[in-house]
Amino acid sequence: MLTRIDHVGIACHDLERSVVRYQEIFGLAVVSRETNEEQGVREAMLVVADPDDGAPAALGGGSYLQLLEPLGPDTPVGRFLARRGEGVHHIGYGVADVRAALSAVAGRGVRLLDERPRHGSMGASIAFAHPKDVGGVLTEFVEAAPR
Amino acid sequence: MLTRIDHVGIACHDLERSVVRYQEIFGLAVVSRETNEEQGVREAMLVVADPDDGAPAALGGGSYLQLLEPLGPDTPVGRFLARRGEGVHHIGYGVADVRAALSAVAGRGVRLLDERPRHGSMGASIAFAHPKDVGGVLTEFVEAAPR
Repeated sequence: MLTRIDHVGIACHDLERSVVRYQEIFGLAVVSRETNEEQGVREAMLVVADPDDGAPAALGGGSYLQLLEPLGPDTPVGRFLARRGEGVHHIGYGVADVRAALSAVAGRGVRLLDERPRHGSMGASIAFAHPKDVGGVLTEFVEAAPR
Repeated sequence: MLTRIDHVGIACHDLERSVVRYQEIFGLAVVSRETNEEQGVREAMLVVADPDDGAPAALGGGSYLQLLEPLGPDTPVGRFLARRGEGVHHIGYGVADVRAALSAVAGRGVRLLDERPRHGSMGASIAFAHPKDVGGVLTEFVEAAPR
Protein backbone atom coordinates (compact mmCIF):
# COMPACT_ATOMS: atom_id res chain seq x y z
CA MET A 1 0.00 0.00 0.00
CA LEU A 2 2.80 2.43 0.93
CA THR A 3 5.17 3.24 -1.94
CA ARG A 4 7.59 5.64 -0.25
CA ILE A 5 8.13 8.07 2.59
CA ASP A 6 6.73 11.11 0.83
CA HIS A 7 7.60 13.67 3.48
CA VAL A 8 8.39 14.48 7.05
CA GLY A 9 6.16 17.31 8.27
CA ILE A 10 8.06 19.53 10.71
CA ALA A 11 6.36 22.20 12.82
CA CYS A 12 8.27 25.47 13.23
CA HIS A 13 7.63 28.91 14.71
CA ASP A 14 9.10 30.92 11.85
CA LEU A 15 8.89 29.44 8.36
CA GLU A 16 11.36 31.77 6.69
CA ARG A 17 13.99 31.30 9.36
CA SER A 18 13.57 27.52 9.27
CA VAL A 19 13.79 27.40 5.47
CA VAL A 20 17.05 29.36 5.57
CA ARG A 21 18.43 27.10 8.31
CA TYR A 22 17.56 23.87 6.47
CA GLN A 23 19.07 25.27 3.30
CA GLU A 24 22.26 26.25 5.14
CA ILE A 25 22.64 22.90 6.90
CA PHE A 26 21.65 20.49 4.14
CA GLY A 27 21.68 22.51 0.92
CA LEU A 28 18.06 21.59 0.22
CA ALA A 29 16.10 23.48 -2.45
CA VAL A 30 12.56 24.80 -1.95
CA VAL A 31 10.21 23.48 -4.64
CA SER A 32 6.90 24.76 -3.36
CA ARG A 33 5.44 27.32 -0.98
CA GLU A 34 1.76 27.33 -0.13
CA THR A 35 -0.69 28.67 2.39
CA ASN A 36 -3.39 26.18 3.32
CA GLU A 37 -6.16 28.08 5.12
CA GLU A 38 -8.15 24.91 5.71
CA GLN A 39 -5.25 23.34 7.61
CA GLY A 40 -4.17 26.64 9.15
CA VAL A 41 -0.58 26.55 7.92
CA ARG A 42 1.97 28.25 5.74
CA GLU A 43 4.40 25.71 4.39
CA ALA A 44 7.47 25.10 2.26
CA MET A 45 8.50 21.84 0.60
CA LEU A 46 12.26 21.12 0.41
CA VAL A 47 13.44 18.35 -1.87
CA VAL A 48 15.32 15.39 -0.39
CA ALA A 49 14.87 13.04 -3.37
CA ASP A 50 13.71 14.55 -6.64
CA PRO A 51 11.17 12.41 -8.55
CA ASP A 52 12.77 13.57 -11.82
CA ASP A 53 16.21 12.48 -10.66
CA GLY A 54 16.05 8.83 -11.62
CA ALA A 55 13.40 7.63 -9.20
CA PRO A 56 11.15 4.98 -10.76
CA ALA A 57 7.87 6.39 -12.05
CA ALA A 58 6.11 3.71 -10.01
CA LEU A 59 7.10 5.57 -6.86
CA GLY A 60 4.84 8.35 -8.08
CA GLY A 61 6.64 11.22 -6.42
CA GLY A 62 9.70 12.39 -4.53
CA SER A 63 10.63 12.76 -0.88
CA TYR A 64 10.51 16.06 0.92
CA LEU A 65 10.89 17.95 4.14
CA GLN A 66 7.73 19.93 4.73
CA LEU A 67 8.18 22.90 7.05
CA LEU A 68 4.95 24.08 8.64
CA GLU A 69 4.25 27.40 10.38
CA PRO A 70 0.80 27.79 11.94
CA LEU A 71 -1.41 30.68 10.81
CA GLY A 72 -2.35 31.17 14.47
CA PRO A 73 -2.21 29.55 17.90
CA ASP A 74 -5.66 27.98 17.57
CA THR A 75 -4.75 25.67 14.71
CA PRO A 76 -3.57 22.05 14.83
CA VAL A 77 0.08 23.00 14.26
CA GLY A 78 -0.21 25.98 16.63
CA ARG A 79 -1.48 23.71 19.40
CA PHE A 80 1.24 21.16 18.62
CA LEU A 81 3.94 23.84 18.97
CA ALA A 82 2.50 25.07 22.28
CA ARG A 83 2.43 21.51 23.63
CA ARG A 84 5.65 20.04 22.24
CA GLY A 85 7.74 22.75 20.62
CA GLU A 86 9.34 22.48 17.22
CA GLY A 87 9.82 19.02 15.73
CA VAL A 88 8.19 16.26 13.70
CA HIS A 89 4.45 16.87 13.40
CA HIS A 90 3.45 14.09 11.01
CA ILE A 91 4.71 11.60 8.43
CA GLY A 92 3.35 11.47 4.88
CA TYR A 93 3.49 8.16 2.99
CA GLY A 94 3.09 7.85 -0.75
CA VAL A 95 0.21 5.71 -1.97
CA ALA A 96 -0.97 4.96 -5.50
CA ASP A 97 -4.63 5.58 -4.62
CA VAL A 98 -5.57 7.57 -1.55
CA ARG A 99 -9.23 6.47 -1.58
CA ALA A 100 -8.19 2.83 -1.67
CA ALA A 101 -5.70 3.42 1.16
CA LEU A 102 -8.37 5.08 3.34
CA SER A 103 -10.80 2.27 2.71
CA ALA A 104 -8.17 -0.38 3.47
CA VAL A 105 -6.93 1.08 6.76
CA ALA A 106 -10.45 1.94 7.94
CA GLY A 107 -11.29 -1.74 7.45
CA ARG A 108 -8.39 -2.58 9.76
CA GLY A 109 -9.65 -0.48 12.65
CA VAL A 110 -7.82 2.79 11.97
CA ARG A 111 -9.91 5.90 12.61
CA LEU A 112 -9.69 8.51 9.86
CA LEU A 113 -9.40 12.25 10.35
CA ASP A 114 -10.50 12.64 6.72
CA GLU A 115 -13.25 10.42 5.40
CA ARG A 116 -12.59 11.77 1.92
CA PRO A 117 -9.36 12.96 0.30
CA ARG A 118 -8.64 16.67 0.22
CA HIS A 119 -6.13 18.96 -1.45
CA GLY A 120 -2.55 18.70 -0.20
CA SER A 121 0.78 20.19 -1.18
CA MET A 122 1.77 20.44 -4.83
CA GLY A 123 -1.57 19.24 -6.15
CA ALA A 124 -1.54 15.96 -4.22
CA SER A 125 -4.67 14.27 -2.97
CA ILE A 126 -4.21 13.58 0.74
CA ALA A 127 -5.91 12.31 3.90
CA PHE A 128 -4.94 11.82 7.53
CA ALA A 129 -5.37 8.86 9.88
CA HIS A 130 -5.64 9.21 13.65
CA PRO A 131 -2.29 8.94 15.47
CA LYS A 132 -3.84 6.92 18.30
CA ASP A 133 -4.43 4.05 15.88
CA VAL A 134 -1.02 4.25 14.18
CA GLY A 135 1.43 3.98 17.05
CA GLY A 136 1.26 7.62 18.05
CA VAL A 137 2.21 8.86 14.57
CA LEU A 138 -0.05 11.35 12.82
CA THR A 139 -0.13 9.61 9.44
CA GLU A 140 -0.89 11.19 6.08
CA PHE A 141 -1.51 9.34 2.83
CA VAL A 142 -0.30 11.18 -0.27
CA GLU A 143 -1.38 10.44 -3.82
CA ALA A 144 0.96 12.70 -5.76
CA ALA A 145 -0.35 14.74 -8.66
CA PRO A 146 0.41 13.11 -12.05
CA ARG A 147 3.86 14.10 -13.32
CA MET B 1 24.10 15.79 0.93
CA LEU B 2 20.84 13.96 1.73
CA THR B 3 19.91 11.27 -0.80
CA ARG B 4 16.66 9.97 0.65
CA ILE B 5 14.53 9.60 3.76
CA ASP B 6 16.08 6.35 4.96
CA HIS B 7 13.75 5.72 7.86
CA VAL B 8 11.31 7.03 10.42
CA GLY B 9 12.30 5.81 13.89
CA ILE B 10 9.19 5.16 15.98
CA ALA B 11 9.33 4.52 19.72
CA CYS B 12 6.97 1.84 21.04
CA HIS B 13 6.32 0.06 24.33
CA ASP B 14 6.00 -3.44 22.92
CA LEU B 15 7.98 -4.24 19.76
CA GLU B 16 6.17 -7.46 18.88
CA ARG B 17 2.75 -5.94 19.26
CA SER B 18 3.73 -2.91 17.19
CA VAL B 19 5.25 -5.06 14.44
CA VAL B 20 2.04 -7.06 14.19
CA ARG B 21 -0.05 -3.89 14.13
CA TYR B 22 2.03 -2.22 11.38
CA GLN B 23 1.90 -5.42 9.36
CA GLU B 24 -1.88 -5.62 9.76
CA ILE B 25 -2.49 -2.00 8.84
CA PHE B 26 -0.01 -1.51 6.00
CA GLY B 27 1.09 -5.00 4.96
CA LEU B 28 4.75 -4.10 5.58
CA ALA B 29 7.37 -6.87 5.74
CA VAL B 30 10.06 -7.09 8.42
CA VAL B 31 13.54 -7.24 6.86
CA SER B 32 15.68 -7.01 9.95
CA ARG B 33 15.52 -7.45 13.72
CA GLU B 34 18.37 -6.41 15.94
CA THR B 35 19.20 -5.64 19.54
CA ASN B 36 21.55 -2.69 19.92
CA GLU B 37 22.89 -2.74 23.49
CA GLU B 38 24.88 0.44 22.95
CA GLN B 39 21.72 2.37 22.03
CA GLY B 40 19.56 0.45 24.51
CA VAL B 41 16.96 -0.74 22.00
CA ARG B 42 15.42 -3.76 20.37
CA GLU B 43 14.29 -2.88 16.88
CA ALA B 44 12.63 -4.09 13.72
CA MET B 45 12.96 -2.61 10.24
CA LEU B 46 9.84 -2.74 8.03
CA VAL B 47 10.24 -2.03 4.32
CA VAL B 48 8.39 0.91 2.79
CA ALA B 49 10.49 1.14 -0.41
CA ASP B 50 12.73 -1.79 -1.25
CA PRO B 51 16.14 -0.81 -2.65
CA ASP B 52 16.02 -3.87 -4.91
CA ASP B 53 12.67 -2.84 -6.31
CA GLY B 54 13.79 -0.46 -8.99
CA ALA B 55 15.26 2.32 -6.85
CA PRO B 56 18.36 3.86 -8.47
CA ALA B 57 21.61 2.50 -7.03
CA ALA B 58 22.64 6.11 -6.42
CA LEU B 59 20.04 6.29 -3.66
CA GLY B 60 22.14 3.70 -1.84
CA GLY B 61 19.38 2.09 0.14
CA GLY B 62 15.66 1.77 0.74
CA SER B 63 13.14 3.45 3.01
CA TYR B 64 11.93 1.88 6.23
CA LEU B 65 9.87 2.19 9.34
CA GLN B 66 12.09 1.42 12.30
CA LEU B 67 10.19 0.32 15.39
CA LEU B 68 12.16 0.81 18.60
CA GLU B 69 11.48 -0.73 22.03
CA PRO B 70 13.76 0.40 24.86
CA LEU B 71 15.76 -2.23 26.74
CA GLY B 72 14.87 -0.38 29.93
CA PRO B 73 13.46 2.90 31.27
CA ASP B 74 16.90 4.49 31.69
CA THR B 75 17.75 4.54 27.98
CA PRO B 76 17.20 7.34 25.43
CA VAL B 77 14.10 5.68 23.98
CA GLY B 78 12.85 4.71 27.47
CA ARG B 79 13.06 8.34 28.59
CA PHE B 80 11.42 9.50 25.36
CA LEU B 81 8.47 7.14 25.95
CA ALA B 82 8.09 8.30 29.57
CA ARG B 83 8.07 11.94 28.45
CA ARG B 84 6.09 11.82 25.21
CA GLY B 85 4.55 8.40 24.74
CA GLU B 86 4.70 6.38 21.55
CA GLY B 87 5.49 8.22 18.34
CA VAL B 88 8.23 9.50 16.06
CA HIS B 89 11.58 9.40 17.88
CA HIS B 90 13.97 10.40 15.08
CA ILE B 91 14.40 10.70 11.32
CA GLY B 92 17.20 8.94 9.43
CA TYR B 93 18.42 10.46 6.16
CA GLY B 94 20.50 8.60 3.61
CA VAL B 95 23.92 10.05 2.81
CA ALA B 96 26.65 8.78 0.51
CA ASP B 97 29.38 9.35 3.09
CA VAL B 98 28.53 9.69 6.77
CA ARG B 99 31.94 11.13 7.74
CA ALA B 100 31.64 13.83 5.09
CA ALA B 101 28.08 14.61 6.25
CA LEU B 102 29.21 14.97 9.89
CA SER B 103 32.06 17.22 8.92
CA ALA B 104 29.81 19.37 6.72
CA VAL B 105 27.03 19.91 9.26
CA ALA B 106 29.48 20.48 12.13
CA GLY B 107 30.99 23.25 10.03
CA ARG B 108 27.53 24.82 9.82
CA GLY B 109 27.03 25.02 13.57
CA VAL B 110 25.21 21.73 14.19
CA ARG B 111 26.29 19.93 17.37
CA LEU B 112 26.91 16.22 16.92
CA LEU B 113 25.86 13.48 19.30
CA ASP B 114 28.40 11.23 17.55
CA GLU B 115 31.77 12.66 16.59
CA ARG B 116 32.52 9.45 14.71
CA PRO B 117 30.22 7.06 12.84
CA ARG B 118 29.04 3.93 14.63
CA HIS B 119 27.22 0.75 13.70
CA GLY B 120 23.56 1.13 12.81
CA SER B 121 20.82 -1.14 11.52
CA MET B 122 21.54 -3.61 8.73
CA GLY B 123 25.26 -2.91 8.63
CA ALA B 124 24.89 0.82 8.04
CA SER B 125 27.35 3.38 9.30
CA ILE B 126 25.39 6.03 11.22
CA ALA B 127 25.68 9.13 13.38
CA PHE B 128 23.26 11.48 15.14
CA ALA B 129 23.06 15.28 15.21
CA HIS B 130 21.55 17.24 18.10
CA PRO B 131 17.83 17.98 17.68
CA LYS B 132 18.23 21.50 19.13
CA ASP B 133 20.29 22.47 16.08
CA VAL B 134 18.01 20.80 13.50
CA GLY B 135 14.60 22.31 14.21
CA GLY B 136 13.74 20.00 17.09
CA VAL B 137 14.27 16.84 15.03
CA LEU B 138 16.67 14.18 16.29
CA THR B 139 18.51 13.62 13.01
CA GLU B 140 20.43 10.52 11.98
CA PHE B 141 22.72 10.21 8.96
CA VAL B 142 22.76 6.76 7.40
CA GLU B 143 25.41 5.45 5.02
CA ALA B 144 23.86 2.16 3.96
CA ALA B 145 26.00 -0.96 3.77
CA PRO B 146 27.09 -1.75 0.20
CA ARG B 147 24.47 -3.82 -1.64
